[in-house]
Amino acid sequence: MSEARPVTIAFDVMGGDHGPVEVVKGAAQLTLESPNVHGLLVGDRALIDEALSQVKYTAERLAVHHAPDFVAMHEKPAAALDARPRCSVMVAAELVRDGEADGMVSAGNTGAGVLACARTFKLIPGVRRAALATVYPTAVSRGEKNDPFSLILDVGATVDASADDLVAFAVMGAAYARIISKNPDPAVALLSNGTESTKGPARVVEANQKLATLRGLRFIGNVEGVDIPKGTADVVVCDGFVGNVCLKMLEGVSETVVELARYAYKEKLLWRAGLAMLSGGIERIKEVTDWEQYGGAPILGFDKLFIKAHGRSKARAITNAGKVAAKAVKSELSKAIQTSLPG
Amino acid sequence: MSEARPVTIAFDVMGGDHGPVEVVKGAAQLTLESPNVHGLLVGDRALIDEALSQVKYTAERLAVHHAPDFVAMHEKPAAALDARPRCSVMVAAELVRDGEADGMVSAGNTGAGVLACARTFKLIPGVRRAALATVYPTAVSRGEKNDPFSLILDVGATVDASADDLVAFAVMGAAYARIISKNPDPAVALLSNGTESTKGPARVVEANQKLATLRGLRFIGNVEGVDIPKGTADVVVCDGFVGNVCLKMLEGVSETVVELARYAYKEKLLWRAGLAMLSGGIERIKEVTDWEQYGGAPILGFDKLFIKAHGRSKARAITNAGKVAAKAVKSELSKAIQTSLPG
Repeated sequence: MSEARPVTIAFDVMGGDHGPVEVVKGAAQLTLESPNVHGLLVGDRALIDEALSQVKYTAERLAVHHAPDFVAMHEKPAAALDARPRCSVMVAAELVRDGEADGMVSAGNTGAGVLACARTFKLIPGVRRAALATVYPTAVSRGEKNDPFSLILDVGATVDASADDLVAFAVMGAAYARIISKNPDPAVALLSNGTESTKGPARVVEANQKLATLRGLRFIGNVEGVDIPKGTADVVVCDGFVGNVCLKMLEGVSETVVELARYAYKEKLLWRAGLAMLSGGIERIKEVTDWEQYGGAPILGFDKLFIKAHGRSKARAITNAGKVAAKAVKSELSKAIQTSLPG
Repeated sequence: MSEARPVTIAFDVMGGDHGPVEVVKGAAQLTLESPNVHGLLVGDRALIDEALSQVKYTAERLAVHHAPDFVAMHEKPAAALDARPRCSVMVAAELVRDGEADGMVSAGNTGAGVLACARTFKLIPGVRRAALATVYPTAVSRGEKNDPFSLILDVGATVDASADDLVAFAVMGAAYARIISKNPDPAVALLSNGTESTKGPARVVEANQKLATLRGLRFIGNVEGVDIPKGTADVVVCDGFVGNVCLKMLEGVSETVVELARYAYKEKLLWRAGLAMLSGGIERIKEVTDWEQYGGAPILGFDKLFIKAHGRSKARAITNAGKVAAKAVKSELSKAIQTSLPG
């Protein structure tokens, strides 16, 4: 696909924490910033039109497709999709499947997004299970843009992953880091309970053996939990159960560190002063380092790309997610994954 | 066992980061502080005698047992124990098995400690796999002593745990929290990738069902990663693979938060000042909140108690570990676990 051919990204405008307004605003902004990208807004037409009346956009690159229903944030995905097959996330996925769009972005219910992909898209040949990947903040930075973020996958799409699944996740994560993070030779690691290649459950030990002989991938072996925040690897691979637990732990830990510091030093005035200065800003640390703001979390493994933006996404984050989705489509991410998989 | 009968704790004096001196000092101090506890020092007699010549202790409550070898911190446990069966951790475990001591403390190689127990002690009837438990710092405090620590197990002894193993871990953790942390009705949770009872791999879902109907245990259901630092549960149960990854992640995260805060606020002078004040102390936050300093990490599931003190333990931490071991023996922790297990 050449640079010249425009790319269309479908936006599920329903289901985010801030309602349709921020998603519409973000997609509208994308049509102003990226001349080769078209937006297709999927959701309640009346709400979309109202939101569009408040913002600037390039009309010839923005279309609307009505969807009568949507999935709320805390609904059970399977039940919701069964009950309302015309919900916005499902309609958007079908538009992508049918070639009306090339990729999609949603800030809604993550499980519903994963399930809509599974029910609509095809797995890349050689991939048996999809993975939800996310960037997370690290102590070291990397790549052209000196990014202080690494990629971890899977963080929740595939709770039980086999050795072959883990190998596929490694390949998918490396391809994404190359294309999206512009990191030409990312260091890929398996998450385990020790750095030795024999450490971990059988599936991890077997995946280690397979990755050690896989060509075209810079596999640096096993890393431990401590290496996640450190940033030892550019891509950390694990099953969705472990990845999800780790990711959610990272979310809670910054406040806790401040609480602990307060406890540890309650008698020290100087430290207390430092903490007081910091504590007002701790919520903002979370915002600033919120990895999902940086283009969102891709669901990898399908022939079509889905970018899950954080539920709290404002317009800026949606615009970024749309840019990442367009970049992945233009760079033929799925094809890059397919050719990198072991025969 | 009545309060009057003295308890003997064997100390593996070799293998800690600070050598035999700190362990000997800690055990010596225990004989001064606890009239009902005897210490049995196991290791190189010449080194022990030299260390003893430097400290005060109650001679009639402190004995020495020579062991010619020891396991170093980074040796592979099985190979080391095979090559040197007379190493101090193995000799200490055998002394406990043979009734010369009632429990043991080691600051050495964790894997060698777990393996020495497995080769020497008996599993409690009804327990199929042992668990290494550890306390970790949380945002909320609990129990009589307003402890800002919770218990997590397993953190590395059993990499693959079945549903029944997880149930046994829950029972063991609750018994430990009741007896050692004096928390009469601890809230016990399963770690999963969602709070719903149906979330997680099959073994976790099955364990949830079994725990929900287990009498005498306050099971609060599944918790997520974010709940670990928050302290939502008093006892968090998981397999040794997930637990080890989480624990090691927690170890690395405090420095990373400071790094990230620095990155996020590099332009804000006030925050920088706060960070500068804090950063000198960040290493000490780790020390102060170092959960293993608070009595060490017990290996649970065997008829005899093994307390793994941190490799960096100084004398004070060793004394505390000895007190915890003695308390567990006096309170008949193993019997409490056995009677709480499901029929």
